[in-house]
Amino acid sequence: MKPARVMASDEETELELANRLFAEIAALSADDKGVSRPAFSDIETRTLAHLEAFARNEGLSVWYDDGGNAKFALPEDADAGRHVIVGSHVDSVPQGGNFDGLAGVMAGLMCLIRAHRAGARFARPVHVLAMRAEESPWFGPCYIGSKILTGTLRAEELAARHKADHRPMSSHMADLGLPVDCIERGEPLTDLAAIEAYIELHIEQGPLLVGKDIPAAVVSGIRGNLRHREVCCRGEEGHSGAVPRAFRKDPVLAMADLLVRLDESWSTILNMGDDLVLTSGMVGTDPKSHAMTRIPDAVTFSLDIRSQSAATLDAMRDLLRAEMLQVERERKVRFELDAEMRVEPARCDPELVERLKAAMAAVGQEPFVMASGGGHDAAVFSAAGIPAAMVFVRNRNGSHNPAESMELADFVAGTDIVHAFLMGVPV
Amino acid sequence: MKPARVMASDEETELELANRLFAEIAALSADDKGVSRPAFSDIETRTLAHLEAFARNEGLSVWYDDGGNAKFALPEDADAGRHVIVGSHVDSVPQGGNFDGLAGVMAGLMCLIRAHRAGARFARPVHVLAMRAEESPWFGPCYIGSKILTGTLRAEELAARHKADHRPMSSHMADLGLPVDCIERGEPLTDLAAIEAYIELHIEQGPLLVGKDIPAAVVSGIRGNLRHREVCCRGEEGHSGAVPRAFRKDPVLAMADLLVRLDESWSTILNMGDDLVLTSGMVGTDPKSHAMTRIPDAVTFSLDIRSQSAATLDAMRDLLRAEMLQVERERKVRFELDAEMRVEPARCDPELVERLKAAMAAVGQEPFVMASGGGHDAAVFSAAGIPAAMVFVRNRNGSHNPAESMELADFVAGTDIVHAFLMGVPV
Repeated sequence: MKPARVMASDEETELELANRLFAEIAALSADDKGVSRPAFSDIETRTLAHLEAFARNEGLSVWYDDGGNAKFALPEDADAGRHVIVGSHVDSVPQGGNFDGLAGVMAGLMCLIRAHRAGARFARPVHVLAMRAEESPWFGPCYIGSKILTGTLRAEELAARHKADHRPMSSHMADLGLPVDCIERGEPLTDLAAIEAYIELHIEQGPLLVGKDIPAAVVSGIRGNLRHREVCCRGEEGHSGAVPRAFRKDPVLAMADLLVRLDESWSTILNMGDDLVLTSGMVGTDPKSHAMTRIPDAVTFSLDIRSQSAATLDAMRDLLRAEMLQVERERKVRFELDAEMRVEPARCDPELVERLKAAMAAVGQEPFVMASGGGHDAAVFSAAGIPAAMVFVRNRNGSHNPAESMELADFVAGTDIVHAFLMGVPV
Repeated sequence: MKPARVMASDEETELELANRLFAEIAALSADDKGVSRPAFSDIETRTLAHLEAFARNEGLSVWYDDGGNAKFALPEDADAGRHVIVGSHVDSVPQGGNFDGLAGVMAGLMCLIRAHRAGARFARPVHVLAMRAEESPWFGPCYIGSKILTGTLRAEELAARHKADHRPMSSHMADLGLPVDCIERGEPLTDLAAIEAYIELHIEQGPLLVGKDIPAAVVSGIRGNLRHREVCCRGEEGHSGAVPRAFRKDPVLAMADLLVRLDESWSTILNMGDDLVLTSGMVGTDPKSHAMTRIPDAVTFSLDIRSQSAATLDAMRDLLRAEMLQVERERKVRFELDAEMRVEPARCDPELVERLKAAMAAVGQEPFVMASGGGHDAAVFSAAGIPAAMVFVRNRNGSHNPAESMELADFVAGTDIVHAFLMGVPV
């Protein structure tokens, strides 16, 4: 891979370095609005190459693992056996923000640079992991990069097709030289037993830290999710003016009816004190054939249902089916669900949480613990039996959109927690 | 225009002729599903040229009017002053059926051929009018062909842009050599005083005649409509997992809420005995930026509201605004309406209705009168002060879709009514 040009930077402070590198990667992945770094794309590969050149310039060791992800370490830790991973992903949603994913990789790199410049050693060897393919918009499934590392990508996920070129995920992987056979057989692409812990820093994707005026937090656990990329409601097309109400099988009104029912149940569940969020992010009649003057024959929509409780996800699964049946009966339509995608809620490792809280205190921050609304690669490592934990950094305007806005001072506050943890704070 | 090849056809019966011509035009305008004859397109022009060649082959006079529409007459009636028009349109919705519009032109042609072959003369001179541009999906406005003939196309309609190439309607008209200046000034493109009556045969677009087992009917009046091609609901984008319900401004759930409210009002209005249909035929989040894992910033949808009562249309206009305000307040979103399109309900001319009923009886059919759910060019002629009336032909599966299905025997039954009317049945 052609290394990107990186300035000699001995004079740059860690803050200047981070600032420049964030800007350079935003520029190389700029879209009409925000950034687009598609999973398994050339832009993703160029992002890793840019990080590689940067890290080499700083005197760090860099290599690629069997999942096509870049890894970074102090030269003396590169060949370590058991090690701690500080990781996150470099891909983004379409027209997303620059910090979702990338901030976690950058935090790991900054910890390495801080130690390298100081000539210090970590309590345990540290490998920084810059993963591909975490975001779901490109293929449907999420956490692809961490799933193939842990050997947990399912066959139907591997067969999922790219939203633009409609080629299966497996053929995109083959293009990058990834071992599709091993992935198909569910073999982990890395030695899981060598990983002592997985730590991930991530921008907060909701408004809690902004509301509480706190720069960073330790995460207690991660919402699981239940998803359908495409629910199709089929009715019957007809003339918009000539078909009386009683004769209609209108899929758009049926979809609206279902969404309002789910929205009402959501409200009830929150009032019962349970945790839930629900989103239909993609909705559409067929632009090739729809018309203002025609009852459409079908409409499709996505569903993303998340909760910290597996029982609530189960209940919503049942509720969705029950409400669909009701709407089908009342409105003479048919709902078709595509393959259900599910990620279980994950608890962060309690011991790691305690150590991160201690690290927070050690760097002069009041320890604060919160749940994660978004899902993260950390949940995949946790499900694979690896102790995992996370640090959140305050961020305005949510994530998955061009307006996400993390202040660099908050990024440094989050990095300080991870750094103190890696240096080995006594609990 | 290059005439299409038409077989010498003295041996063909009227039924065979109609059958062949319907099939030839379906073939020349075939799409992936059904037919597509876009307004002011080359396909529309070729359709008129095909009819022209066919009519010339049958010995009829053919010419084009200033609106770019084809006109047909018995040679002895071509230069008549006052005359009766039998007309309809040749364009279709995208991936629509072959009969919506075309059947009315064909019925007029068959009446001419029947008279010509019999050496008979009509009670009054008859001109058959094959119009362009009746369907709204292409530009937004409907009845464009009849509006420019009657000088009633509004400036904002003329400025409407094509759904695919985004060029204004006026530039599509200029390409066809239509007098855009006259159209802009609202000058009728035809001598309205010369038109004694406008008669239109059309397939029924609803299920009533199928349900009643009647091949054809006389129409009493035409539903008016109130339309928005694009209502935009703007909310705020955000992470689908991390933004709590209370912080959300979800435009998709807001749209669903509005549609369900309108649907409930629809039911109430029908229970009060008023006439109404309501359709949102086009719905969509932005495919360029939407994602399963993102609350979208906006969703757009169309509205087509129709009634035989202008007062009901007025009431729905107010109700729409009231419900939008409620949803905006409750869900912290904003609705943006594009320019309102409105066509007033039209009554068919009572004397023409009586004469068509008499014609029905004269050809051995039990007179039956019904309202039209769909809007038609006849309403535009009626609004311009020209006595207008319609005949409906039974048709399965509605119109504006590829499955529309008129039996040729029913087409002949409808044509019989128009023919008897033109020959002059005593009332």
